[in-house]
Amino acid sequence: MRIKVDGQTLDILAVQMDKHIVTMIDQRWLPFKFELKRLESWQDTVKAIKDLVTRGAGSVGVAGAFAMAQAAHEISTTLVLEFNHLLIEAADVIRKARPTAVNLSAAVNHCLQAAEHGTTVEEKRTLIDEAAQQVLSSDMQATQEMGKAGAELLQPGSRVLTHCNTGALGIQDHGSALGVIRFAHEAGNLAMVYVSETRPWLQGSRLTTWELQQEDIPHQLVVDSACGYLFTKGMVDAVIVGADRIAANGDVANKIGTYEKAILAHTHGVPFYVAAPLATFDLECLSGENMPIEERPAKEVRTVVGRLPTGGMGPVQVAPDQTEALNPVFDITLAKYVTAFITEKGILRKIKPKQILKLVEKSGYAS
Amino acid sequence: MRIKVDGQTLDILAVQMDKHIVTMIDQRWLPFKFELKRLESWQDTVKAIKDLVTRGAGSVGVAGAFAMAQAAHEISTTLVLEFNHLLIEAADVIRKARPTAVNLSAAVNHCLQAAEHGTTVEEKRTLIDEAAQQVLSSDMQATQEMGKAGAELLQPGSRVLTHCNTGALGIQDHGSALGVIRFAHEAGNLAMVYVSETRPWLQGSRLTTWELQQEDIPHQLVVDSACGYLFTKGMVDAVIVGADRIAANGDVANKIGTYEKAILAHTHGVPFYVAAPLATFDLECLSGENMPIEERPAKEVRTVVGRLPTGGMGPVQVAPDQTEALNPVFDITLAKYVTAFITEKGILRKIKPKQILKLVEKSGYAS
Repeated sequence: MRIKVDGQTLDILAVQMDKHIVTMIDQRWLPFKFELKRLESWQDTVKAIKDLVTRGAGSVGVAGAFAMAQAAHEISTTLVLEFNHLLIEAADVIRKARPTAVNLSAAVNHCLQAAEHGTTVEEKRTLIDEAAQQVLSSDMQATQEMGKAGAELLQPGSRVLTHCNTGALGIQDHGSALGVIRFAHEAGNLAMVYVSETRPWLQGSRLTTWELQQEDIPHQLVVDSACGYLFTKGMVDAVIVGADRIAANGDVANKIGTYEKAILAHTHGVPFYVAAPLATFDLECLSGENMPIEERPAKEVRTVVGRLPTGGMGPVQVAPDQTEALNPVFDITLAKYVTAFITEKGILRKIKPKQILKLVEKSGYAS
Repeated sequence: MRIKVDGQTLDILAVQMDKHIVTMIDQRWLPFKFELKRLESWQDTVKAIKDLVTRGAGSVGVAGAFAMAQAAHEISTTLVLEFNHLLIEAADVIRKARPTAVNLSAAVNHCLQAAEHGTTVEEKRTLIDEAAQQVLSSDMQATQEMGKAGAELLQPGSRVLTHCNTGALGIQDHGSALGVIRFAHEAGNLAMVYVSETRPWLQGSRLTTWELQQEDIPHQLVVDSACGYLFTKGMVDAVIVGADRIAANGDVANKIGTYEKAILAHTHGVPFYVAAPLATFDLECLSGENMPIEERPAKEVRTVVGRLPTGGMGPVQVAPDQTEALNPVFDITLAKYVTAFITEKGILRKIKPKQILKLVEKSGYAS
C-alpha cells in the first residue's frame, strides 16, 4: 500500500519480513500516529499479534507464517527430531495468539506441511521461508484479482457504501472490499465512498478513512445509522463489504451492521456485493443458522476508545456503569440479499458448493 | 418522573417552576452526575435552554413558557403599553434560544396570546402564569394518554426496540415512546427494552438507559447497527419511536437511524409504532419530501463525547482531523412503514389530515 508520511510516499506492506525480521504497521495508534514495529524474534511477533499491533484475518495469517519462519530460523539444532519437536511447540504458541482467526492456523499449518518435505533442518528452514512468503503472495494475488474483477461491476460515477475495514491493513496488499474500491478508483469510475463508522470498534472511522486518505480516494464518513438516509436520498449505487465466513448456501457472516445494509440495498434496488477470497467459504457450514456468533463484553458498548484531549488513546464512558449491553460481533446476511460474490476466481452470482470446491482446489494455498 | 438519588426516591419533573424560580434537571452531565439547576431570572432560563441544560421538544417548550412567566413577573412597570413592549422583546429573545424547536415558539406564543385577555399588568401576569402551567400540564396529560393508549398495543412478554431519548427528560412527565414503555412495564407486559445508542449524540446510551434504570425497567443497550441482529434472532416484538415532525400523508421525520429500524420491522413483520402528540403533525407539509433535513458539523461524527478517564465530560477523536463527514440529524420514514401512530387522542392507523385537524381543535393547547 502507498502511504503518505511527512510529505513522502512510501510503498509498504501492513506486515512484511526481511532477513527474518518482521515489520508491522502498528494499527493500534492509527489514524493518529504512524509507526512501524520491528520484531526480531518469533516470540516478539506472537506478542505483537496478541497485542493487536496488526489485525484483519489476512494480516494475522501472514504474521503467523512469518513467526513460523522466524522460529525455524531461531531453533538452533541440526537434529531433525529435535527441530521438529521445537517447531511444533512454537506452532502451538503461534496458533494460540488469536485462537479464533481461521487464517492464522491455516497459515501455520501450511508452513508445517511444507517443512515435512525437507530431510535436513536447513532444507526445512528454506521450505518454511518459502511457504511463509507464499501465504503473503497468495493474499496479494487474491486481493489484486478480486479488485480487478469487482471493479468491473461498477459503472462510471459510482457512489459506493462500505462497512468496517476491509483494506490493505487487514488483507494485503489491496484489501477485499476496499481492494475493489481501489481498482474502481484507478479506473476512474468512483465518485464517492461512504464509510460507516462501525461501532463499537470504529474500524470505519479509524482505519478505512485513513487508508482512503493515503490514496486520495474521495470519501465521507457517516454514523452507522445514517446509511438509511443515504439510500432514501438515492446516494448509493452499490454496497461492497467483506466477509468473515460464508456458508455452503451463500449466507454471509460479517461485521455487525452488514445485514442492515443488505436489507437497505434490497429495499432500494441497489446491488449488494460481498468481496472475499475463496478461503472464506466454509463448505462444512450448511447455512447461516449454523454459524456461532461471538458476543463480546458489554463494556465495549458502554465506552468509546479514541484520542483523548490530553493525547494518547483511551476510552470515554457513554452509558451508566451498570448498564447491560448486548455486543454481538457479527450478523448473518442471507444469500438471497447478496447480488454477487467477488472472489479471486471471478464473480459468483450463485453459490454452488461443488464449484467452490473445484475453484479452491485450483487456487492452491489460499489464506 | 421518579429518580433514585443517594438511595432515596424523588418525584421530580425535568423542568418545573415554583414562585417564579425555574428548576431543571441538568441533562448535560447525565448519566454521570445528577444535578438540579436553579434559575432565578428569565435570562438565566434562556441561557440554560441555549446551553442545553434541558433538551427535548417538550421540555424546551415548557422552559420557554416558564421563562415568559418569569419575564412577566420581572418587568417592573404598571403601564400596560410598556409592559407589552418589554414582554414582546423578551418573547423574541426566548424564541431565539433554540430557533428550530417548534414547541418553543408555540409555547411562547401561547403565553403572549393569553396575556392579550388581561387589561392590567397584574391580570396579564396571572394569565401568563396560567398559560405557562398549561403548557406543562398539556404535555403531562398528552404523555399519560399516549402511554395508556400505546401500552394496550403490547402483549404480555413484549420485547421492544426504541431509539434516541423520547423520555420524561424530553417531554414531561412520561415521555412519548418511552411513556408507552413505562405504561407497558406498569401493566407487567414488558420483558425487555432494547436501546440503540443513537450516534452521534448517544441519547440512547446516556439518557434512555438512565431513565429506564430509575424505574428498574429491564433493558439492554446495543450499538446502532446491532438492531438488524436483534431482528434476525427474532428478539423484537415491536419498535416504538418518537417523531420530530409528521407530514399530512403520515411520513415521519425523526432522529437519524429511525428509517433503518422501520425497514427492518417491515422485513421481519414486526409492528412499527410512532408515539407523538398531535402537535407533531404538520399538516402544511404534504409529505416527507418537503421536509428540510438539518445537517450538522462533521466534527460530531469525528468525535464522541463522554466521561473522560480523568473525570468530567469531553470528546475523544475517532477519525483523522481532515475527514469529511455527512451528519444528517433526521431521516424520513414513509407512512407505509408505520403500523400505527400513538397520540393523546388514541391510536391512528391511517392518517387523514381532516381527522387530525379535528382532533387538534378539540385538544386545545398542545405543545
